[in-house]
Amino acid sequence: MKIICSKADLLNSVNIVMKAVPAKSTMPILECLVIEVKNGIIKLTANDMELGIETLVKGEVIADGVIAINAKIFADIIRKLSDNDIIIETDDNFMAHISCEKAKFDIAGKSNDEFPLIPKIERDCSIELSQFSLKEIIRQTVFSISDNESNKIMTGELFEITGNEFKVVSLDGHRISIRKISLKESYDHIKIIVPGKTLNEISKILSGEIEDMVKIFFTNKHIVFEFNDTMVLSRLIEGEYYRIEQMLSSDYETKVTINKKEFLNCIDRATLLVKESEKKPIIINVGEQNIELCINSTIGSMKEEIDITKEGKDILIAFNPRFLMDALRVIDEEEVDIYLFNPKAPCFIKDKEETYIYLILPVNFNAGVN
Amino acid sequence: MKIICSKADLLNSVNIVMKAVPAKSTMPILECLVIEVKNGIIKLTANDMELGIETLVKGEVIADGVIAINAKIFADIIRKLSDNDIIIETDDNFMAHISCEKAKFDIAGKSNDEFPLIPKIERDCSIELSQFSLKEIIRQTVFSISDNESNKIMTGELFEITGNEFKVVSLDGHRISIRKISLKESYDHIKIIVPGKTLNEISKILSGEIEDMVKIFFTNKHIVFEFNDTMVLSRLIEGEYYRIEQMLSSDYETKVTINKKEFLNCIDRATLLVKESEKKPIIINVGEQNIELCINSTIGSMKEEIDITKEGKDILIAFNPRFLMDALRVIDEEEVDIYLFNPKAPCFIKDKEETYIYLILPVNFNAGVN
Repeated sequence: MKIICSKADLLNSVNIVMKAVPAKSTMPILECLVIEVKNGIIKLTANDMELGIETLVKGEVIADGVIAINAKIFADIIRKLSDNDIIIETDDNFMAHISCEKAKFDIAGKSNDEFPLIPKIERDCSIELSQFSLKEIIRQTVFSISDNESNKIMTGELFEITGNEFKVVSLDGHRISIRKISLKESYDHIKIIVPGKTLNEISKILSGEIEDMVKIFFTNKHIVFEFNDTMVLSRLIEGEYYRIEQMLSSDYETKVTINKKEFLNCIDRATLLVKESEKKPIIINVGEQNIELCINSTIGSMKEEIDITKEGKDILIAFNPRFLMDALRVIDEEEVDIYLFNPKAPCFIKDKEETYIYLILPVNFNAGVN
Repeated sequence: MKIICSKADLLNSVNIVMKAVPAKSTMPILECLVIEVKNGIIKLTANDMELGIETLVKGEVIADGVIAINAKIFADIIRKLSDNDIIIETDDNFMAHISCEKAKFDIAGKSNDEFPLIPKIERDCSIELSQFSLKEIIRQTVFSISDNESNKIMTGELFEITGNEFKVVSLDGHRISIRKISLKESYDHIKIIVPGKTLNEISKILSGEIEDMVKIFFTNKHIVFEFNDTMVLSRLIEGEYYRIEQMLSSDYETKVTINKKEFLNCIDRATLLVKESEKKPIIINVGEQNIELCINSTIGSMKEEIDITKEGKDILIAFNPRFLMDALRVIDEEEVDIYLFNPKAPCFIKDKEETYIYLILPVNFNAGVN
């Protein structure tokens, strides 16, 4: 194998496949990436058995071949070479000779025989949307997946397609996040659970541009994202997702309209007084024209008022401040509507069209009164 | 006590004194900063017993008073308040009421009775230089102090003033760094050892501007830096500094002139192949018109040539790559001169006027040959 690529192109592709390289694995071959050169095409592959990524690299092919090489070392070398053409050449003993200007590296590679192939999947069922939209809906929901591996389903997100509606749901037992967007076309009904780790990694690779599209293919066991010269395949999480419809309600006793940034900054300040371990709630006292937030802790106390527009009853309710902040941070609107029922019922932060719904369970506010 | 300060002024002053607040102390009072208001002046003080900092804050004084308050909590609160006027008011029970716009914090403070006073020192003996120069000479030497507390003297830097020459020296047993600058005036001879920690902290506070001056006062036990509205006092390290003159030599067998950036980048690339624990040296083969660097490790090997100008003999010599990089990184010149004697004698990287001298001991190069 012998190829010549620009440093910029090669580094860009290496950074993409690195997302599927495990930091440490019991199978050393998984810590490698595979460079495969065939029919004038240079392809990089990495695969941690749950997530597999393939991407093409622009470059000049002088001889075909294939090699597996430690991904971290390879990426470090490419990153530190000069901004110029890089020549990669391998010999029969799987030695990789990497050179750029006057620098010459010799690194021992491996045969790719043991490297797990990324499975070929049926491409019957697919949808298309912009990379911007996909990146946004991941960002706006992925924070409320659970990291508790004992409940696998909560570590993933529901992807549900009904007609032209694409709905993404995540939940962790204390809150639910829902985002809905309209697709350009209508599709058959799809309902799958995608690992949160896959979504976190893919959102790092997506360009975030409205004009760049991404195709998503679905099978019973896998999801494939295809965009630019990259293909990302992930296993799905098996099982039935939670029925969340029965937890959603459009009934409310109190509706509060509040400036998002003021509310967020105020909660952020209040949490200064709370140590991680204390789990102190923030108490919200909804009055006629303002809400009063207060928090008491061993360090001290804090009080702040924020002007609001209110419909319905006054209410005193308490929340885990982090859950409120997580939701408020991902909402793009300047003003948000908060719907409350009673101090023991969940609150809903949502827009009128319900393109986003954040359900957050309250906590016992007596816990916060010293 | 009651004062009104802008958030920006207060935060700036808090950030300065924070440099003398220990992260954790067996004396909780040291984790506080003291706010003292007297004669229309607002002063913040912190003191970890080795380093003490006082700085003035611009602001409106409504009532005099003094309070000690947990520095980290106070800094966090000020940082998160809105960009507006902040009112700080204390009562007889040492409660601090901090308010800004509609946010109100109540934090329990303490009397400053137990807070250690920063000692008043004699101000007979002083020098003056620009904050830029002081910041630069610290940066260019402080990396080669030792962090081994068992040899206290090596954890500090020698400050020596002879006439109008100000010399700073640091060493750790493997290398010596020397920087000399000319002062505008001549002074009596001074020779003291300043703790490296003090220098690291002070260089974070110095503005780095050529027009801003700093006054340095010396006593037998203390050094005081005075600049802007800030006073930093540090204990000195007691003892006699090493006699380094006998280690310096202007004899050489080989003189190499090399592009600093090329040399640095090349070593940086080579060290990719070396794990922290391996301590592999980099081998430098000085030839007629170029040097060849090579490194061998369990991961692979690397070779690179760099064009040079040479006087004297060819030489094969090996170094700890980190020591070379540390010195090269702080040199501002595009080209550097390296003076070599034999493979067992130290190399000197220095300019003609010897405003900087970096002495680095070589290592046994057989260690690097696999």
